[in-house]
Amino acid sequence: MSNKLTIGMFGFGVVGQGLYDIIKTKNLNLEIKKFVIKNGNKKRSLPADLFSTDAEAILGDPEINTVVELIDDAEAAYQLTVRALKSGKNVVSANKKMIASHLEELVDIQHDYGTSLLYEGAVCGSIPIIRNLEEYYDNELLHSVSGIFNGSSNYILSKVFNENQHYADALKKAQELGFAETDPTLDVGGFDPKFKVCIVASHAYGIYVKPEDVFNIGIDKLGQQDIRFAKEKNLKIKLIPTAKEIDRNKVVLYVLPRLVGKDSMLYNVENENNGVLVKAAFADEQFFYGKGAGGHPTGSAVLSDIAALRYGYRYEYKKHLESSTLNYSQDYLIKVYLRYTDDTLIEKLNFSEITERYYAPDFKYVIGHINLQQIAAHKADLDQEGNFIAEIA
Amino acid sequence: MSNKLTIGMFGFGVVGQGLYDIIKTKNLNLEIKKFVIKNGNKKRSLPADLFSTDAEAILGDPEINTVVELIDDAEAAYQLTVRALKSGKNVVSANKKMIASHLEELVDIQHDYGTSLLYEGAVCGSIPIIRNLEEYYDNELLHSVSGIFNGSSNYILSKVFNENQHYADALKKAQELGFAETDPTLDVGGFDPKFKVCIVASHAYGIYVKPEDVFNIGIDKLGQQDIRFAKEKNLKIKLIPTAKEIDRNKVVLYVLPRLVGKDSMLYNVENENNGVLVKAAFADEQFFYGKGAGGHPTGSAVLSDIAALRYGYRYEYKKHLESSTLNYSQDYLIKVYLRYTDDTLIEKLNFSEITERYYAPDFKYVIGHINLQQIAAHKADLDQEGNFIAEIA
Repeated sequence: MSNKLTIGMFGFGVVGQGLYDIIKTKNLNLEIKKFVIKNGNKKRSLPADLFSTDAEAILGDPEINTVVELIDDAEAAYQLTVRALKSGKNVVSANKKMIASHLEELVDIQHDYGTSLLYEGAVCGSIPIIRNLEEYYDNELLHSVSGIFNGSSNYILSKVFNENQHYADALKKAQELGFAETDPTLDVGGFDPKFKVCIVASHAYGIYVKPEDVFNIGIDKLGQQDIRFAKEKNLKIKLIPTAKEIDRNKVVLYVLPRLVGKDSMLYNVENENNGVLVKAAFADEQFFYGKGAGGHPTGSAVLSDIAALRYGYRYEYKKHLESSTLNYSQDYLIKVYLRYTDDTLIEKLNFSEITERYYAPDFKYVIGHINLQQIAAHKADLDQEGNFIAEIA
Repeated sequence: MSNKLTIGMFGFGVVGQGLYDIIKTKNLNLEIKKFVIKNGNKKRSLPADLFSTDAEAILGDPEINTVVELIDDAEAAYQLTVRALKSGKNVVSANKKMIASHLEELVDIQHDYGTSLLYEGAVCGSIPIIRNLEEYYDNELLHSVSGIFNGSSNYILSKVFNENQHYADALKKAQELGFAETDPTLDVGGFDPKFKVCIVASHAYGIYVKPEDVFNIGIDKLGQQDIRFAKEKNLKIKLIPTAKEIDRNKVVLYVLPRLVGKDSMLYNVENENNGVLVKAAFADEQFFYGKGAGGHPTGSAVLSDIAALRYGYRYEYKKHLESSTLNYSQDYLIKVYLRYTDDTLIEKLNFSEITERYYAPDFKYVIGHINLQQIAAHKADLDQEGNFIAEIA
């Protein structure tokens, strides 16, 4: 039978409101006892005694057995989550940066204190990828997990590609619609999908990798020439995080724009939608698609986690416990398209092989194979205006 | 901790062999003790003492706690499954016809005997749709679940549509590749997807509907005119089972060809692949894609079920237990394209509204709204050569 949950919720933004809307329509044996918010003066749509600005109103209340953490600030979220887990409360969070940055410690705390931390809403909104990696693909030989994990950069790419909008206009529109984070670099620079792929990697391969050790580059240097190049070849450019087992000992993780053709399921993922591609030895290619952001989709994922807590659900982290031989690596040869301005960059990058070179007064590119370590070592150069790098699948 | 499983397997066909291949590569705390097969004289790739032609070698062995049922014959599968469940053995099956035809009774037996029957492999091969409906969307207001549930008819449609192959040639090829059932009517007549949508409906809506009460019509009357009609409008024709909540009391189920546009995720599901579209109030539109048939994909789903049994997993059938107010209905107005030869058919069908009529010497069609009850009542007429009906989304 299900346990009654008494919930304390940190934050009452778009996801919190969405979650509240959903719960209202349901009879779920759960009660939201308290919201803790930053700004006590804001007018709220619910009775005032439901709100407090003091974290103790939740953390110090022994009746509250479940904490839902939906705040922006990753450091504050981390402090709250640790305290809650250590005081016997289960936690549901959608904070990808917090989870990714502290995952190994958070797994240990869950183990030591017998509490459960669920975070489906942190990765690709409503798409149940963590649950499926954890439960359904737990015996699969996973070749790779990749996809479109960031709705806001994908929205921008859709507008730029399909509607010939300028990058800056599309970014502004994404922010107005609430798809983009306050700091757009998190999205368009590929940091947000990096946090998510680190979380995915722990459930897919049982490895804990710090986000700062993973290479990411985004779409903020995308230029008209790159778009023309892609279109001439019937390709689209998508921002893709990848977790991939390259041999029996090594898993690579990285975030790079990718040139994607019509034969890929990712080609048709447009606007704020997300898509996750799972390649496995036996299930073969699987694809999950859905809304990656927004109050209701993320709220729906958070509610699924809350509902699962009623039945004592917890991630088992089986793959980590099985002490596999897999380690994180950046030693991996990939094929890239690189638009550049300064010829010395090509020398520096030490391509293993350059197969195509193109020169024109306003547009120079090379296509070739290069080690991911080389790319990571020269991130600062690649991030300069005038350069744009994308993987060729 | 996980329980050791001792497995008896009925059948050693393509899925059984696929499963055996997968298990070989794993260290899973499970043992296959016995295969029961129909033909004892066939040469097998494994030691002879693993095989028996006597069902008692499994059902009468108290050491065997898990039965994996992978035989074609739905009636025999049913008898075995009931005996196994009643004698305290858990069962994993991929037999959609057997499950769909006896689901309510099988749920009762599980309840009465405390045993578990899992059947992810019965619906859309490797796509974890049952598990996700059961676990992840268990609190969602589901508007509909639909999609491409039959790889062999979809393979034929892909060949006919994209490669201008003749229907009969494409069917023959599908059978050679092992995608099509021995009796192709099961696939191309829409029976196989009907079994699957009945199973889906029980997990999505908590209702048990007998397959014989559900309308299905297939693609076997598809003609060149229909293909031309679809192509002129940039549409494809797909065979789609639908389970849909049409109001707070009614769920409709049916299987019909559908004209699908580029904006649908189903448009790009080609060949033997399957795709499941879940529309929900909060998660919005979700899509699951993967291999729908074949030894390894189905074997992978069966293995996920076996692995879950090690941890005592069982479907809770929560939505049924919550005694919802939902009932099965056929009272639903849909928009259809109908090519016909005999004018009296149009009179008989009693369209609510006809919005387009087309006449030519060799091609007549109407487009209009019609109640599903009318369509179901005239299945025999619609099934005549010279007629083809498809839903317009």
